[in-house]
Amino acid sequence: MIIWKGTRIIGCATRCFSTSSRRTEIRHLSELPERVQPTFKETSNHDLLSLRWPSPPRNILVVRKDNDDDALEAVLEFGHHIRSTYPDISLIFEPYVAEELHRNFDFPIYAANGKENAAYQEKVDLTSTFGGDGTILHAASLFATAQSVPPILSFSMGTLGFLGEWRVGEYKRAFRQAYVSGAPGPLHAKSTDDPDHTSNPLRPGALQAWSNIKGKSMGHTRNSRILMRNRLRVGLFDENGTRLPHGPPSAYTNNPGEDVFALNEVLLHRGSLPHLAHITILIGSPPHQRTLTTAIADGFLISTPTGSTAYSLSSGGSIVHPLVSSLLLTPICPRSLSFRPLVLPANTPITLRIDEENRGKEIEVSVDGARRQTGLKTGMEVRVVGEEVRSPGAPGSREWAGGVPSIVRSGGAADGEDHWVGGLNSMLKFNYPFGNG
Amino acid sequence: MIIWKGTRIIGCATRCFSTSSRRTEIRHLSELPERVQPTFKETSNHDLLSLRWPSPPRNILVVRKDNDDDALEAVLEFGHHIRSTYPDISLIFEPYVAEELHRNFDFPIYAANGKENAAYQEKVDLTSTFGGDGTILHAASLFATAQSVPPILSFSMGTLGFLGEWRVGEYKRAFRQAYVSGAPGPLHAKSTDDPDHTSNPLRPGALQAWSNIKGKSMGHTRNSRILMRNRLRVGLFDENGTRLPHGPPSAYTNNPGEDVFALNEVLLHRGSLPHLAHITILIGSPPHQRTLTTAIADGFLISTPTGSTAYSLSSGGSIVHPLVSSLLLTPICPRSLSFRPLVLPANTPITLRIDEENRGKEIEVSVDGARRQTGLKTGMEVRVVGEEVRSPGAPGSREWAGGVPSIVRSGGAADGEDHWVGGLNSMLKFNYPFGNG
Amino acid sequence: MIIWKGTRIIGCATRCFSTSSRRTEIRHLSELPERVQPTFKETSNHDLLSLRWPSPPRNILVVRKDNDDDALEAVLEFGHHIRSTYPDISLIFEPYVAEELHRNFDFPIYAANGKENAAYQEKVDLTSTFGGDGTILHAASLFATAQSVPPILSFSMGTLGFLGEWRVGEYKRAFRQAYVSGAPGPLHAKSTDDPDHTSNPLRPGALQAWSNIKGKSMGHTRNSRILMRNRLRVGLFDENGTRLPHGPPSAYTNNPGEDVFALNEVLLHRGSLPHLAHITILIGSPPHQRTLTTAIADGFLISTPTGSTAYSLSSGGSIVHPLVSSLLLTPICPRSLSFRPLVLPANTPITLRIDEENRGKEIEVSVDGARRQTGLKTGMEVRVVGEEVRSPGAPGSREWAGGVPSIVRSGGAADGEDHWVGGLNSMLKFNYPFGNG
Amino acid sequence: MIIWKGTRIIGCATRCFSTSSRRTEIRHLSELPERVQPTFKETSNHDLLSLRWPSPPRNILVVRKDNDDDALEAVLEFGHHIRSTYPDISLIFEPYVAEELHRNFDFPIYAANGKENAAYQEKVDLTSTFGGDGTILHAASLFATAQSVPPILSFSMGTLGFLGEWRVGEYKRAFRQAYVSGAPGPLHAKSTDDPDHTSNPLRPGALQAWSNIKGKSMGHTRNSRILMRNRLRVGLFDENGTRLPHGPPSAYTNNPGEDVFALNEVLLHRGSLPHLAHITILIGSPPHQRTLTTAIADGFLISTPTGSTAYSLSSGGSIVHPLVSSLLLTPICPRSLSFRPLVLPANTPITLRIDEENRGKEIEVSVDGARRQTGLKTGMEVRVVGEEVRSPGAPGSREWAGGVPSIVRSGGAADGEDHWVGGLNSMLKFNYPFGNG
Repeated sequence: MIIWKGTRIIGCATRCFSTSSRRTEIRHLSELPERVQPTFKETSNHDLLSLRWPSPPRNILVVRKDNDDDALEAVLEFGHHIRSTYPDISLIFEPYVAEELHRNFDFPIYAANGKENAAYQEKVDLTSTFGGDGTILHAASLFATAQSVPPILSFSMGTLGFLGEWRVGEYKRAFRQAYVSGAPGPLHAKSTDDPDHTSNPLRPGALQAWSNIKGKSMGHTRNSRILMRNRLRVGLFDENGTRLPHGPPSAYTNNPGEDVFALNEVLLHRGSLPHLAHITILIGSPPHQRTLTTAIADGFLISTPTGSTAYSLSSGGSIVHPLVSSLLLTPICPRSLSFRPLVLPANTPITLRIDEENRGKEIEVSVDGARRQTGLKTGMEVRVVGEEVRSPGAPGSREWAGGVPSIVRSGGAADGEDHWVGGLNSMLKFNYPFGNG
Repeated sequence: MIIWKGTRIIGCATRCFSTSSRRTEIRHLSELPERVQPTFKETSNHDLLSLRWPSPPRNILVVRKDNDDDALEAVLEFGHHIRSTYPDISLIFEPYVAEELHRNFDFPIYAANGKENAAYQEKVDLTSTFGGDGTILHAASLFATAQSVPPILSFSMGTLGFLGEWRVGEYKRAFRQAYVSGAPGPLHAKSTDDPDHTSNPLRPGALQAWSNIKGKSMGHTRNSRILMRNRLRVGLFDENGTRLPHGPPSAYTNNPGEDVFALNEVLLHRGSLPHLAHITILIGSPPHQRTLTTAIADGFLISTPTGSTAYSLSSGGSIVHPLVSSLLLTPICPRSLSFRPLVLPANTPITLRIDEENRGKEIEVSVDGARRQTGLKTGMEVRVVGEEVRSPGAPGSREWAGGVPSIVRSGGAADGEDHWVGGLNSMLKFNYPFGNG
Repeated sequence: MIIWKGTRIIGCATRCFSTSSRRTEIRHLSELPERVQPTFKETSNHDLLSLRWPSPPRNILVVRKDNDDDALEAVLEFGHHIRSTYPDISLIFEPYVAEELHRNFDFPIYAANGKENAAYQEKVDLTSTFGGDGTILHAASLFATAQSVPPILSFSMGTLGFLGEWRVGEYKRAFRQAYVSGAPGPLHAKSTDDPDHTSNPLRPGALQAWSNIKGKSMGHTRNSRILMRNRLRVGLFDENGTRLPHGPPSAYTNNPGEDVFALNEVLLHRGSLPHLAHITILIGSPPHQRTLTTAIADGFLISTPTGSTAYSLSSGGSIVHPLVSSLLLTPICPRSLSFRPLVLPANTPITLRIDEENRGKEIEVSVDGARRQTGLKTGMEVRVVGEEVRSPGAPGSREWAGGVPSIVRSGGAADGEDHWVGGLNSMLKFNYPFGNG
Repeated sequence: MIIWKGTRIIGCATRCFSTSSRRTEIRHLSELPERVQPTFKETSNHDLLSLRWPSPPRNILVVRKDNDDDALEAVLEFGHHIRSTYPDISLIFEPYVAEELHRNFDFPIYAANGKENAAYQEKVDLTSTFGGDGTILHAASLFATAQSVPPILSFSMGTLGFLGEWRVGEYKRAFRQAYVSGAPGPLHAKSTDDPDHTSNPLRPGALQAWSNIKGKSMGHTRNSRILMRNRLRVGLFDENGTRLPHGPPSAYTNNPGEDVFALNEVLLHRGSLPHLAHITILIGSPPHQRTLTTAIADGFLISTPTGSTAYSLSSGGSIVHPLVSSLLLTPICPRSLSFRPLVLPANTPITLRIDEENRGKEIEVSVDGARRQTGLKTGMEVRVVGEEVRSPGAPGSREWAGGVPSIVRSGGAADGEDHWVGGLNSMLKFNYPFGNG
């Protein structure tokens, strides 16, 4: 239950006696200033982008792993550090987290009301996650209906995974680098290997704002590196081609019938049905749409490269680097020896249609692990295509939008693509040899 | 044995008495006019390109499957058709084929001398193949050292495969379409779905040349569709980083030490060695190069998407659409349960280094199935990266070069990506179900 | 709804007016004579057994595929043939089938009452199935609590599968061979390759009964060949080691808490849960029980070799010949790259225990595709071991019991193991090559 | 070079001056007493057998891993321990090892002459290996033509693998247990869970011999547990059905044309050929032989369950427990999506025939990793069947012969099947999970 400043919720009386104290205050997101949208610049010799703020970020959403004491402790420490070092920054939490944490802070924190996820899209400048891959996935799902997702800075409690996480002990350095990324002059590095030194169009007052950071000088730092993760654009349609509403979390938006975005995958699955799912797979969109096959299986996955190390991997899919612009079509326990997983261009429209052989039984549909309460019946379709993340144009001049901008760990000897190679080895125990000669 | 005009080879006397007749003549490639280089235009709603000749192609290389009577017969019929319909066109064959066939033609044909493959790069406007995938692969290997490969028009004797082949019975229509592609006015179609109607810069006399086609008017045809197949750029290096020469076919070039191009894959394999190969896999190039893993296996493949339905598929790799800009790293019988095949961005430099655990034994290296006579020893490296096929820029304005321009079958109801979906089903018996309820 | 002779069910009045006619009569199973139990003899040079009746079979259970007109028609034709040729034989159907069919027969047919499957075990001499693999599996499930299963003679409407089916057109020959199998003298063959010619201990009157067959003399036939299919013995236990009742169909027995038998597999699966199942796998029984691993997956299968071409195959398991005495442990979408399917000795006790990581969520459990209504929670176990099918002893002297005795198609050129090799090729499209050179 | 007692080899003069001293002596195997053959008794509640010597073993073959200092040191320590504690025992080495080691021992050691492996079969009572799985495989290959293999007691320098190895530090206890296994009275345990306490028929003087062990009383020990590993029986035949000789090591026997035995697998492989192997696979033996399929692949493996964790595993085969009486047929990189590995009964004859599509090219054939110098050509066959390891009869009364009797590690809490479950986890890193929630 959440305590809203001024608008006490009925029934709170018995438990909320201490809310008269200001320090336990939870304020509503709407009081925060508008979102600051960064730009993402291509660099000369990297596949990663360079993060540039027009003015310092102010509204930070903090997402943490549930039921994890380490993550809880890290969030508290992070919160106090932000408050003391970056006084202009406000912290946002999900409502149930805000309720749980607000007594630990002697300053106001912010939350949305219930499940109104759309509010995050208007206010959040940067998201910090504390937990594992699942936590990042959850954070991304809060923006499942947003064309433009704020950068995500993620901290891992344990093993560094595929998603470019930072060690939790690095949080001060990591946040500082992300905070000043794009700032001019002494605040950031003159790097020779990227166009960071070109002038970044700043908002009025931006420089002053950056100077307000407490403590020691920021010194020279490199701009943060962004891996832009493509998502899937997912629509549900009935047998007449009419849009069907999505389930949560995207249901809690103003436009429940629009496409939602998936960071990992869309899943069709028979669930608890005793019969296998019969699905017709179509490639392309009319008039160039063509049937690939009708397949019988436990289910089907359409994944992003980011999702290639998630469910698709369990189902036998290849591991695809996040910078390969592609979609994966991976069957789950197909009744065929010859349905090898496919990798298609990201801009290929793929349709999964519930075949009439299913005879009225509902096939479950899930987006990034969140299952829609009502399944799909004969003739209904899931239509998927990769999200567009950049405008056309020559490298250096293209606009980047869409995708989930992930601030990738950098610094030290390990740089560039490290997070992925590292993730392969640490997360998958990739290529552990057997036999001992 | 080949009969060169004017330069009779000693020892020919007994067998070549009939060569005084003009019709059995084999002439040298160098007598042909210079190559006509087409351009490849992006179209508005296709991933395929549009083929445009500045003037009609004149030098046609014909490659056929060996030991195949159907292919032989088709080549003869094709040759006579070209001669009678397109009198300005000259036919080129590989030397041993020219020797075998020239008595069947009452007009001169052309051939290179021995294994001087480089000559093809200077003269061939278009290659026609008669056979299967292996024949196309062989034709591409004749241009393994060429940055710019002429378009390939391939005819299948049997099942239509992944490579966009045409049925052999369609050869007249297919060749005519390829021949006039890019010609203005009544010669080609006004298509609304691509920029074919924009003016194509023609060479002087081009229009006149096209008008010389015998027989009925060309009528309106659409420009030929090109699927630009990316290749791998492959270099061999010794333990000091010095280049090593490649084996045939690229050995027969002026610069045997340069990179060669592979249409399908590069293979490292233990061959007949009783011990497994120990290979270190590095990602990126210095100073950002990083070790992925050292692996023990029968071998390793780096494949193009085109090669994903060849050896890589046998080894457990995913099927990757040719338009996904990527490289596949697929182990062959690895001594590990956890070396899942990888798909990397096409511009990722990958190095395979012979590990010292191999103790001086040679690991075989093959490019597109052609094995280098001498294997690689400890410390030697294969360095691979995907070929660049287009200049930067916005769609519509980019220059395309590199890659193997494959003229994809079109016409009738089936169009667009058909060849790939069709290939999955016809070639792989993809998704054949088991069980009968 | 079923019409019981003499014991009219209330509510039948309106629809059952015609039941006064004798030909629509459905009688209760209990009126039939006791079951005739055959023996199964090892033969000198086959892995198959020889079927021997002590006296002719009299009670034939007929099971058919639902919603299949071909199967329906075949059952009717079969019924009339049996009635006219083997007047001593009675036909038994499942209650809902009996209700559907009885008007088509002008003689009484038999059925059990509702779901009292145990009744079949006491009366059925032989089961005939008309349909596919699923029909055989269903027939076997009617004996899921029986130590001793009557022989199954199965007819396929379509492709011959793995289970030794006969073509439906062969039903007269097939049934005749099964009927006289073990009969002495001119009724059966003197085969030199098996001990069929040794005296079979007959019941009094058996010879006379066999002579009653109408129509032409039986002539010489070989004894029917039996493939004895091992089953799994499956028990469910709570966290204290107390037995839990099974779900249907075995729930409809006198002893719902006893082990049931599975012909194909036991499945643990997360079903519609968003979280993966955490299962601890233990090998052996106390005090020699040992933990193999705790695994995270969509589910786990323990299969018989018969089940190796069913769900296990979809999940990546090997194909195991039914005569390999073994159990298969196959994970479904494991969160591991290194959980390769296992094949264990049939007499290995395997325990799957719901791990506490599942936090109270229920994991679905299914036996041969029939899901138990209530899943298993933390600490509960599925305990599985292969069924014992023969007594110890030297070949030729061993007693065979347990297992599902499948009468394997024979005759003509194809004999012996044909059904399995044939099934591989026809059912799985095993080893369909790709590529065309 | 080897120093034979009395028969000095020419050229030895310069290096062998010290051979006048008795302690550097290498004697020939033929001087040793005849082999002592143990029996293997079935136990009441184990799948393992109980080892029983009729009299103490005297001739111990010691095999070690090459180029491994730890293995060398362990062998020396073992040798001195055996000499001091079991004075009646003689140590045998392979010729090149004897030459390398003999100066380190002040007592005579024994060796065969060159490659006359058959001599081992007549003399060796027990083999001890020091190394890894490869060392055990090599030791087994020395008996590749022997119907009866002496027990193998193996010590691992590193990780305990699948083959029941003991830790090298346990060598005293392990050897003592193996040495007294089957001895009566106070020398061995009265175990209640096996028939060890039944009288073992001893040779005259056996008891006295056991009493000669120096040092402390043997105390009560349990009999050693034997895992009898089945082998493959392998024959090579030309296109007329005439036997072809095997290559080394079996070539060095008196009957080079007879079947040889493989502990792991038989391999057909294209080796360095550019073309895939075309192999026809036949199941059964005439007249019941039937073609399974003709397949195109890099190669084919027929493996034992012991070999299921070797090459077959790399090629995608299942892991099969060594007590599952079976053969594995595993393709290597097949040109098919639908050639799933097969598991067949051990007594199934399998024939691999070189198909005429190979057009005269030789397909390599290897037995347990040893390649035959000459490959097989069109029409030639490899015929394989599982070795018979026990006579028919009831458990407890059967005779066991054939197979490789492996003395399995025991003692402590971990017993029974430990070695296999342990091997899965330690060797394969079986079921290492990915993802971190």
